Amino acid sequence: MTTPAFPSETATRLASYLEGRWVEGSGGTLVRDAAYGAPVALVSSDGLDFAAALRYGREQGRALRRTTFHQRAAMLRALAGYLTERKELFYELSYRTGATRRDGWVDIEGGIGTLFSYSSLTRRELPNERFLVEGEVERLSKRGTFVGQHVLVPREGVAVHINAFNFPVWGMLEKFAPSFVAGVPSLVKPATQTAYLTERVVHAIIESGILPEGSLQLICGGAGDLFDHLEEQDVVTFTGSAATARKLKTHPNIVARSIPFNTEADSLNAIVLGESVQPGQPEFDLFVREVVNEMTAKAGQKCTAIRRVIVPRDRVEAVSEALRARLSKITLGDPTRDDVRMGPLVNAHQRDETVKVVQALCAEAELLLGHERPELLGGDWEAGGFMAPTVLYCERPLEASAPHELEAFGPVVTLMPYQGPDEAAELARRGRGSLVASIVSHERSEVRELFYGLASAHGRVLVLNRDSAPESTGHGSPLPQLVHGGPGRAGGGEELGGVRGIKHYMQRTAVQADPTTLGAITGEYVTGGEVLEDRVHPFRKTFDELRIGDSYLTHRRTITEADIVNFANLSGDHFYAHLDEIAARDSIFGRRVAHGYLLVSVAAGMFVSPAPGPVLANYGLERLRFIEPVGIGDTIRARITAKRKIRKDAKPGERPTGVVEWAVEITNQNDQLVATYTILTLVERAAD
Amino acid sequence: MTTPAFPSETATRLASYLEGRWVEGSGGTLVRDAAYGAPVALVSSDGLDFAAALRYGREQGRALRRTTFHQRAAMLRALAGYLTERKELFYELSYRTGATRRDGWVDIEGGIGTLFSYSSLTRRELPNERFLVEGEVERLSKRGTFVGQHVLVPREGVAVHINAFNFPVWGMLEKFAPSFVAGVPSLVKPATQTAYLTERVVHAIIESGILPEGSLQLICGGAGDLFDHLEEQDVVTFTGSAATARKLKTHPNIVARSIPFNTEADSLNAIVLGESVQPGQPEFDLFVREVVNEMTAKAGQKCTAIRRVIVPRDRVEAVSEALRARLSKITLGDPTRDDVRMGPLVNAHQRDETVKVVQALCAEAELLLGHERPELLGGDWEAGGFMAPTVLYCERPLEASAPHELEAFGPVVTLMPYQGPDEAAELARRGRGSLVASIVSHERSEVRELFYGLASAHGRVLVLNRDSAPESTGHGSPLPQLVHGGPGRAGGGEELGGVRGIKHYMQRTAVQADPTTLGAITGEYVTGGEVLEDRVHPFRKTFDELRIGDSYLTHRRTITEADIVNFANLSGDHFYAHLDEIAARDSIFGRRVAHGYLLVSVAAGMFVSPAPGPVLANYGLERLRFIEPVGIGDTIRARITAKRKIRKDAKPGERPTGVVEWAVEITNQNDQLVATYTILTLVERAAD
Repeated sequence: MTTPAFPSETATRLASYLEGRWVEGSGGTLVRDAAYGAPVALVSSDGLDFAAALRYGREQGRALRRTTFHQRAAMLRALAGYLTERKELFYELSYRTGATRRDGWVDIEGGIGTLFSYSSLTRRELPNERFLVEGEVERLSKRGTFVGQHVLVPREGVAVHINAFNFPVWGMLEKFAPSFVAGVPSLVKPATQTAYLTERVVHAIIESGILPEGSLQLICGGAGDLFDHLEEQDVVTFTGSAATARKLKTHPNIVARSIPFNTEADSLNAIVLGESVQPGQPEFDLFVREVVNEMTAKAGQKCTAIRRVIVPRDRVEAVSEALRARLSKITLGDPTRDDVRMGPLVNAHQRDETVKVVQALCAEAELLLGHERPELLGGDWEAGGFMAPTVLYCERPLEASAPHELEAFGPVVTLMPYQGPDEAAELARRGRGSLVASIVSHERSEVRELFYGLASAHGRVLVLNRDSAPESTGHGSPLPQLVHGGPGRAGGGEELGGVRGIKHYMQRTAVQADPTTLGAITGEYVTGGEVLEDRVHPFRKTFDELRIGDSYLTHRRTITEADIVNFANLSGDHFYAHLDEIAARDSIFGRRVAHGYLLVSVAAGMFVSPAPGPVLANYGLERLRFIEPVGIGDTIRARITAKRKIRKDAKPGERPTGVVEWAVEITNQNDQLVATYTILTLVERAAD
Repeated sequence: MTTPAFPSETATRLASYLEGRWVEGSGGTLVRDAAYGAPVALVSSDGLDFAAALRYGREQGRALRRTTFHQRAAMLRALAGYLTERKELFYELSYRTGATRRDGWVDIEGGIGTLFSYSSLTRRELPNERFLVEGEVERLSKRGTFVGQHVLVPREGVAVHINAFNFPVWGMLEKFAPSFVAGVPSLVKPATQTAYLTERVVHAIIESGILPEGSLQLICGGAGDLFDHLEEQDVVTFTGSAATARKLKTHPNIVARSIPFNTEADSLNAIVLGESVQPGQPEFDLFVREVVNEMTAKAGQKCTAIRRVIVPRDRVEAVSEALRARLSKITLGDPTRDDVRMGPLVNAHQRDETVKVVQALCAEAELLLGHERPELLGGDWEAGGFMAPTVLYCERPLEASAPHELEAFGPVVTLMPYQGPDEAAELARRGRGSLVASIVSHERSEVRELFYGLASAHGRVLVLNRDSAPESTGHGSPLPQLVHGGPGRAGGGEELGGVRGIKHYMQRTAVQADPTTLGAITGEYVTGGEVLEDRVHPFRKTFDELRIGDSYLTHRRTITEADIVNFANLSGDHFYAHLDEIAARDSIFGRRVAHGYLLVSVAAGMFVSPAPGPVLANYGLERLRFIEPVGIGDTIRARITAKRKIRKDAKPGERPTGVVEWAVEITNQNDQLVATYTILTLVERAAD
C-alpha cells in the first residue's frame, strides 16, 4: 500500500446547529474515511432537544414568511455565491467520502447550482409576493357573482429533510432551496456516515449571515425522538433506503397528523438500447459510454444509477465486449489522485454489503466481469470501500426476479437481452417503479413506442442519441427544472420540477367569493369585480400609484369599410373573410369582417396615452380570444383594467420598474364582448 | 307514531359487480332504514375473489387506455344523461338513508352533475389524446439541443375508491369521474350502511352499456383481503373516519409499494363572523342562515359541515338568539314528507354515538339548545336515527380542547367567542387542519386578514356576503372545479379541483431529449426541432393533412417610416416611442420604433393565404412577447410552424374542424428574434 494521502488523525466531534447555536451530542459513532478507513469524525445527537428545535423553527418561520419570494430568491443567490467562493473547503472533505473531484463536482457544485437555479426560476416564474395564485379564476355561477381560485401559502411548520450518505451537499441543498423559497424553515438530518461534509457546508451558510436565523437547522447524528414532536403543518422529505422509508412513514405521528412525507428511494433503473441501433452507429458508443459512466460515477452509489442494461438479444455479445474494453481502462484508487477514475464505496461495510448482493444475484445471473481485483492507485483495499466494476448477465430476465429486485448499491449492472419493444418495456417495468430509465435510439418512432411502454413506471425518461448527446446531462442527474422521484419502489415521491417543488411546502386553498373580495385576497383584478375610476388615466400613474382595479373605459369608434381596406393594404393581409364579398358570404362569418389585429390595434389607439409617461413599453400579450366578429358599421370601445402588478427589483443603475398586467375587453354597440386579452406593460416606479 | 311510509319488508340481498358479472357474498349484515329502522338490505362480500377483480380491472384498463380523453368525456356525458332520466329510482332509495328530497338532490343530482362537469372540463382543457403534456418545454442546455418537458400517462392499475355512508351517489361519482377521464378503471366500495343506493346506481350504469366493460366494479360489503392484492400502479382514495384511514394507509402493501392513498377525513370546520358585521346587516342574517343550513342539511352528516361557530364576543347573545329562532322552525320527521325539513341520522346507532359526543363536549361547553325532543312528522324516534339540532357554547375556547377535537357527526355546533382577527384565526386553526372554513363579512380588508390567518390550515375557504350570497353554493358543497380536501386532521388529501383531480390517477414523467424526439413523443412541435417544408403552404392543408412541424418561412419586408405613420393614423395609436422623434430618443428604445401590433399585422400579411381554404379563422393568440425593437429600415420575416393539433368532435350538422396552434417567430435582418407567439386557427378536417 502507498502512503495514505490523509495522515491518521483523531476524529473531530461534529456539532448540530439547533435553536441558533452549535451544540454537541454525547457519546457518538466514529466515522472513517472511504479510501483508507482512517477516523474522520465522531457523530452524535444524543441528548439534544429536538422538540425545542422544532418549536424554534416554527417560531422563526414567522420572520421568513414575512419576506417575499423574490427576497428569498435574492438570498439564495447571495448564498450560492458565498458557497462557491468556499468550494475548495468542501472538496477537501468530499474526497474523504470516496468522491473523486468529478464526483465531488456533482455533489458540491451541483448542489450550489440548485440554489442558483431556484433563485432564477423564482424570479422568473413567481410573483414578488408571499403567496401564490394558481390557475385561472373559475366562474362558479351563472351571473359570475360567485367565483373561485386557488391560492397557495407556506405551511406554518418545519420542513424536516432526511438525507442519504451519497450526496451530503446536493442532497441537502436540493431540498433546502425549494422549501426556503416556499417560506418554510428547514431542519436537515444528513446520514451519519458523511455528515462531516454537510456540517462544513452548514457552518459556511450560518457564518454567511445571509439567511434569516432559524431558516436552517442541522442534526448530526440520529433522529432520536424527532418524529414524536412533528405537527400537522410540518413536512418530511426522505431520501434513502426503502426499508427506512417504510419505518418512518408509518410513524404514528406522520399517519395521525397526515404530515406530508415525500420518499425518494433507490430503484433498479434501466437503460434500453433500441433495436434500431447497430454496433458502429454513434448511439451504440453513446450507450456503452453512458453505462460505464453510471457504473463508475460515485462508484455507482447513486439512487438513479443504471442497474439493468436491456439490449437486443443479438447485441449482447457486442455490448458486453464493448463494456469490458471500456471498463478495463477505469482506474481505481485514492480519489484525490488525478489519475484515478473511480473511488471507493463510502466504507468497507458498504462494499461488503454490495458484494453480498452480487453473490445473491449470481443465483439468477452469471458474472461476466468483476471477479478480479484491479490494481489500486492509492487507498487500502481492505480498510477502504474498494470494489471492482461488475457486470452480470441474466439469460432469461423475464423468468428471473433477483435482478429486478436486489439493488447492488455500487458499480454493478446486470445485462439482459430482449426481443421487441414490448419485451423491453416489460423488463424495465419489472423494476416495479423507478426513478429513471434511458432509451438510446435515433429512430423517433422506436423511442416513442418505448417511451409509452415505460412511462407509467418511471419518474423520468432520458432519450440519448447523436442529437441530444453533446449537451445531455446524463441518465443519473436530476435537474432542478424537472421532477425527481418515481412511482412504486422509487418511493412514489416528487422533488424539484421547478415551481412544483416549491408547492410541496405550501398549502393549496380553494377560495370562493364574489369577484371583488377574491381580488382583495389575491391582489389581482377579477373580471366582474368593482373597478376604480377617477379622472387620471391609469397610464398616467406610476407603478406605486396604480391600484389593482384602476380602470379606463375608452371612447367609441365605428369600424368602417375604409378601416378594413386600409388595414389590409398596410398589413398585406388580404384574407377573403375581410376583402372578398363573395367568398365571405360563404365563410363561417357570413359577411366581411374586420381583421382581428385591426381591433386590437384600434383598441390600443383608444386607450394609449401618447405623451411620455410612466408606461415605458408594451412588451407582450396573453390569452387573446376573438369572441364576436366585428363587421362594417359596428362600433367598438375598450375597457382596460389594472389586473396584476409584479414589482421588479432594479439592478444598480437600472431604472426602477414593475410589470403591470392589464385586462382588456373590447365590446360592440350591443355590449357584446368582441375580444378579450391581457397586455403586459413596463411601468416606472419610485426608487427604493 | 304514524304509519311507516315504507311497509316492513324482507331485506333484499345486495350483489357486487366484479369481473363483468353480479355476484353475491354469503351471510351478511342487515341494514335498516333511517327513519323507521325497517330492514332494507342484506350486505356481504364474503367469499368474493378480490384478487381476481383487481387483475380483471388492470387487464380491462388496456381497452380504456386506448380511448382518448374526449372519448371518455363523451361517455361521461352520455352516462350523466342516462342517469338523469332514471333519477327518481335513486330518490326512492335515497329517502331510506334519511335524506330529504333536498338532501338527495345534493347526493344524486350533485353526483350526476360531477359527471357533466368533468365531461365539459375535459373537452375544454384536455387534448383529444391518451396522454397529457404539462407545462412548457424547459431548455436544459446552452444551444437548446437538450430539452425537457413533463408528460402524464394513466397509471396502469385500478383506482380503489372507498366511500363513506353519507353520500352513496356523489361519493362514488366524484371519484369515478376523474379516474375514468384519466383512463383508470375503478373498483368502488361504498359503506355498508347505504350501499343499497350505490348498488342501484351501479346497476343503471352497467345496464346502460355506455362504459367499456371493466371501467367500474363494485364491492357491496367488507373490503376483506382487497388490500393484500394491491400493486404499485393501483391508487386508493378513501373518504371516512380518521381512524379507518390510519388503519388502511399503514397497510404493509400500501407502504411497501408506495401506492398513492388519498384521504379525505371529517374535520371540525369553522365559520367566522367578521367583527365588522352587526345584527341587522345582511351578513348577519346570511351567517345565521348558513349555520342552520349546515346543521340541518343531511342532519349535519357531512364531512364539510360547520362544527364550530366563531363569533365576536359581544355578538354571542345575538347570534344564539337568532339561531334559536331559526332552528325552532326546523321540522323533523319522515324524509319523504314535504313538510319535513330535517331527516334522521343514518341509523339509531349513529345517533347514539353522536349524542355521546355531545355529552363529552358538555365537559367544556354548555348546552344552549337541543335538550328537548321535538315533535316528529313521521318516523320513529327510538328505532330511527332522529336527533334534535343542538347548539353548545364554549365560553373559553382557547383553553378548551374537546370542541376542537371531538366531532359530533350530526346537527351539532359549538359557539365560540373571539376578540380580534388573530384570535379568530387561531381558533379556526385549533381544528388542526380542516376541509373548509367560511368567513362572513363585507369588509374586504377584514376578509383578507382572516383569510391569510386561516389559509394554511384549510383546503377551502368560502367568503359569504351580500355580493356572493345570491349565487353562493354554500359552505358545505365541494365543487368539481375546486380542490376538495384539507391538511392535518382532514387527511391531507386532494380530490376534484378540475384537471388536478384527473392527474391524481396519472404518472408524471419528466422527458429529456433533443427537440425533434421530444416533439415525436409529445406530438407537439418543439422550438429547435426539425421542421418539415414542402411546396404546399401549410394553410392549404386540411387538419388531417397537416403534420406537426409543417413550416413556412415568409418573404421579407422592410419596415418603413411610412408604415409606422400609416399604422399610427389607422389605429389612432400615437404613442411617443413611435412618432415623437424627440421623446423617443430618451425612451428605453433610444429611437422611434414600430408598433408591436404593426409587426404582428405585417407578419400575418406575409403568412396568410388569402383565398378560401381549409383555414377558417384565426381565433386567438397566446404568449406574445416583443423581444427586440424594430426601427425604421429594419427588415423582418416570419416563420410559422404547426405546433399542436386538437381534433374537435363535430356535433351533428356541424362542419368537422380542429384547432391548430402555430408557433410564430418574427426575425430581423440579423436573424435576431423580434417577437414570438402562438396563434390559434380553426381548420377544416374530413368528416369521420
